[in-house]
Amino acid sequence: MFESAEVGHKVEKAVYAKEEPKLREALLNAQFDLSQNGKFATLILIGGVDGAGKGETVNLLNEWMDPRHIRTVAYGEPSDEERERPMMWRFWRSLPPRGEIGVVFGSWYTAPIVDRVIGKSNDIQLGNAIDRILHFERMLSDEGVLILKFWFHLSKKAQKKRLEEIESNPRTRWRVTKLDWERFKIYDKFSRISAHTLRETSTANAPWTVVEGSDPRYRSLTVGKILLGAMRKRLTEKTIPKDRVAAPLAPVMDNLQLLRSLDLKQKLDKKTYDKRLEKYQGELNLASRNKKFRNRSLILLFEGSDAAGKGGAIRRITGALDARQYTVIPVAAPTSEERVQPYLWRFWRHVPRLGRVTIFDRTWYGRVLVERVEKFCAEEDWMRAYSEINDFEEQLVEGGAIICKFWLQISADEQLKRFKLREKTSFKRFKITEEDWRNRKKWTDYEAAVADLVDRTSTEIAPWTLVEAEDKLFGRLKVVKTVADRLAKEL
Amino acid sequence: MFESAEVGHKVEKAVYAKEEPKLREALLNAQFDLSQNGKFATLILIGGVDGAGKGETVNLLNEWMDPRHIRTVAYGEPSDEERERPMMWRFWRSLPPRGEIGVVFGSWYTAPIVDRVIGKSNDIQLGNAIDRILHFERMLSDEGVLILKFWFHLSKKAQKKRLEEIESNPRTRWRVTKLDWERFKIYDKFSRISAHTLRETSTANAPWTVVEGSDPRYRSLTVGKILLGAMRKRLTEKTIPKDRVAAPLAPVMDNLQLLRSLDLKQKLDKKTYDKRLEKYQGELNLASRNKKFRNRSLILLFEGSDAAGKGGAIRRITGALDARQYTVIPVAAPTSEERVQPYLWRFWRHVPRLGRVTIFDRTWYGRVLVERVEKFCAEEDWMRAYSEINDFEEQLVEGGAIICKFWLQISADEQLKRFKLREKTSFKRFKITEEDWRNRKKWTDYEAAVADLVDRTSTEIAPWTLVEAEDKLFGRLKVVKTVADRLAKEL
Repeated sequence: MFESAEVGHKVEKAVYAKEEPKLREALLNAQFDLSQNGKFATLILIGGVDGAGKGETVNLLNEWMDPRHIRTVAYGEPSDEERERPMMWRFWRSLPPRGEIGVVFGSWYTAPIVDRVIGKSNDIQLGNAIDRILHFERMLSDEGVLILKFWFHLSKKAQKKRLEEIESNPRTRWRVTKLDWERFKIYDKFSRISAHTLRETSTANAPWTVVEGSDPRYRSLTVGKILLGAMRKRLTEKTIPKDRVAAPLAPVMDNLQLLRSLDLKQKLDKKTYDKRLEKYQGELNLASRNKKFRNRSLILLFEGSDAAGKGGAIRRITGALDARQYTVIPVAAPTSEERVQPYLWRFWRHVPRLGRVTIFDRTWYGRVLVERVEKFCAEEDWMRAYSEINDFEEQLVEGGAIICKFWLQISADEQLKRFKLREKTSFKRFKITEEDWRNRKKWTDYEAAVADLVDRTSTEIAPWTLVEAEDKLFGRLKVVKTVADRLAKEL
Repeated sequence: MFESAEVGHKVEKAVYAKEEPKLREALLNAQFDLSQNGKFATLILIGGVDGAGKGETVNLLNEWMDPRHIRTVAYGEPSDEERERPMMWRFWRSLPPRGEIGVVFGSWYTAPIVDRVIGKSNDIQLGNAIDRILHFERMLSDEGVLILKFWFHLSKKAQKKRLEEIESNPRTRWRVTKLDWERFKIYDKFSRISAHTLRETSTANAPWTVVEGSDPRYRSLTVGKILLGAMRKRLTEKTIPKDRVAAPLAPVMDNLQLLRSLDLKQKLDKKTYDKRLEKYQGELNLASRNKKFRNRSLILLFEGSDAAGKGGAIRRITGALDARQYTVIPVAAPTSEERVQPYLWRFWRHVPRLGRVTIFDRTWYGRVLVERVEKFCAEEDWMRAYSEINDFEEQLVEGGAIICKFWLQISADEQLKRFKLREKTSFKRFKITEEDWRNRKKWTDYEAAVADLVDRTSTEIAPWTLVEAEDKLFGRLKVVKTVADRLAKEL
């Protein structure tokens, strides 16, 4: 992996003096075109050995281009707000929006490599981390992010020399710490594990470039030219290339039965409902104050056709909790800040801290429901969403979350009845819109989408609960009971 | 203050049963109208003694209205991200957007009152905190936020009884902690200081309502009705009332001389510039790595007419810093999330952590520059901005920030020359827009606005530096030197 970066690449001063101004202007122009184009973000990952010019190169990129549209982020120790969320939350927080350039130091590669080097993880764990990274970068790339990864390399000898040089200069001495020398001692192991990681994660959509770090002129021109080439290529492409195997075909099996087989006749009388609701709300309240819950979080997802009773069910949940502990996120059209980010970004930002509850009224499943049915996104985009979502939820669970997902089902007749009733009662008028009437016409399409969604995303760690909501009382109770039972099991 | 809340207010069960459903429907309708109107946020502050029903009332409000559009926030210990910023940052973070309701527990009143009670602060410090609160709430109110403050009160006897009751019930026992009893011991002192604080902060634009907390039915109906009344009143008002004294008149003195008296002929030759730039950039770099800087932050503000060289000056600063340490915020049109918040919100969100540098390319002074000159906001709105800005910057400095503010001045002739040059060189084409040509026509208006701004906001803690930028080298050097000198003085 690193052989070609130990041959002593050099660029002569005269050559550099001639090429640098041209490269600089070209990069500045490309950056301008990127911001005008506004269709993709450019993400530059910086990794490698100490003393190989990582910081210098990034500073140079900021000098060459307009630093006002470059977001450079370095990740040190996570803050407490970050520690209480899945590991990737901090990276999602600072993704560059479309039209901008993001530079990431100490990215998602640092922890997996370092953990393996110091023996905190084994090969299998490193393998899992690599898989996660592959999924993540694949998703970013599919969402249009241009990803460039640079690994700054120095041979063992060159690194030693470089560290000594920096240390001997009083103006730069501060940059070499004990940690650097300790890391140097494990150069070989670090090198081996890095090489392995780079090999496994150098993909067509997010390739690694290993840059020999000993000659500043060489490494600067190399990084600048590769960046320029990649940006120019993407800018001239008519459409963003989808580097993916052909999307799998939509399932043809008739799994509409899934919803139609639900027994919507199930009912509860008011008295039984009141009694049982009190019981389960009590359990839910108790669980939310359980000491063990301080190290967990609860994420509730509500989907369902319009007027299926999501709001009512949510209120039976919040009614059992302290308002200081929960947040309800009504998912509507994305804001302008959300529209310039990958699809899941708007949900990542609402991931709760430990000890908290977040309730989503409509969710990331909109991608495979409304966006699929209304053709707001291409088939290949919603097809890939299933695995992206599974990956997202897996990370939430690893971060301590307990996830319950509810689909509330009513019959078309019942929906019509509720629509008409709502139009009459001003009390609930805010729940009925033009769109609701339109959606109704696509009842069967939605049924198919729901069947697929349950098929593909009902996992052991984040199962779907189909709720027979024709009778409001029956539906609400099932929701509250499911959450209470789940918490009892998990805590 | 609290006398009227110790008389034993009560609401009979039958009365409550009759009034509650009506109130509930009316509140839900008002909430809907608020979200449709979208012109103001409703902010509900909750304070008072323990056991007086604060939590219960908020839970009830969430039950009565649609919890999806209420943001309930409780402030406990600040997170490390919050601790490294001015005290008010955490409150700004969670302000409700227009059209929504925010409920705040443990608001900006908690710390000042508690600190005074436990003797951590004296009367003067409490007075200062109260002044700050008055400014803050006045600003919120002027920005259209509807503020309601509820103080839940119990007489000493009633509180004791209440705590004992809660403690004796196994289901609620958890809610009474040792801390509650300790606080009870200082009831009198707490009561006296709270009463004083409430008196001083009960203003026409943000009045306190003291609610007797012993009868749940009474307190629920009271809070609900006051909230309903206030929302309804605001909703029916044609324009948002400006509860303020008449805006002070714009100054008539001819302080245009301020800018015209700058000696724009000052120049530097390239050789002197290079030598001195290296010196000051070196000092700046050293200062940014000074241990003392880890407990400070640096905020640089750049304003100036178009083509005055803000970008070039910023690059001479960033060139001296590590890219991992700074962020440049180019201020353009606000995003949709920013537009539904008070004016300063979009700047508060970029306040740096300790040890970091934030550079604003255009700033909150846009309010008293472009928004004033182009009449994007009413005179009373930009007039009040001066003191709001001074208050904001004072808080930044108290939070550890070092602030340098630059106005870059060129002559109208020089600007024209630069515009024409830029149109020719593609290299810089991104800097010249239609708007730039338009702004030029209002040169004198801008001059007057700048003179006022310097007059009113050049404070000892956050002074303006007027930069003669006709000669680029001279201007850039002055900027870098000013920052370097300032850091040397402060660290």
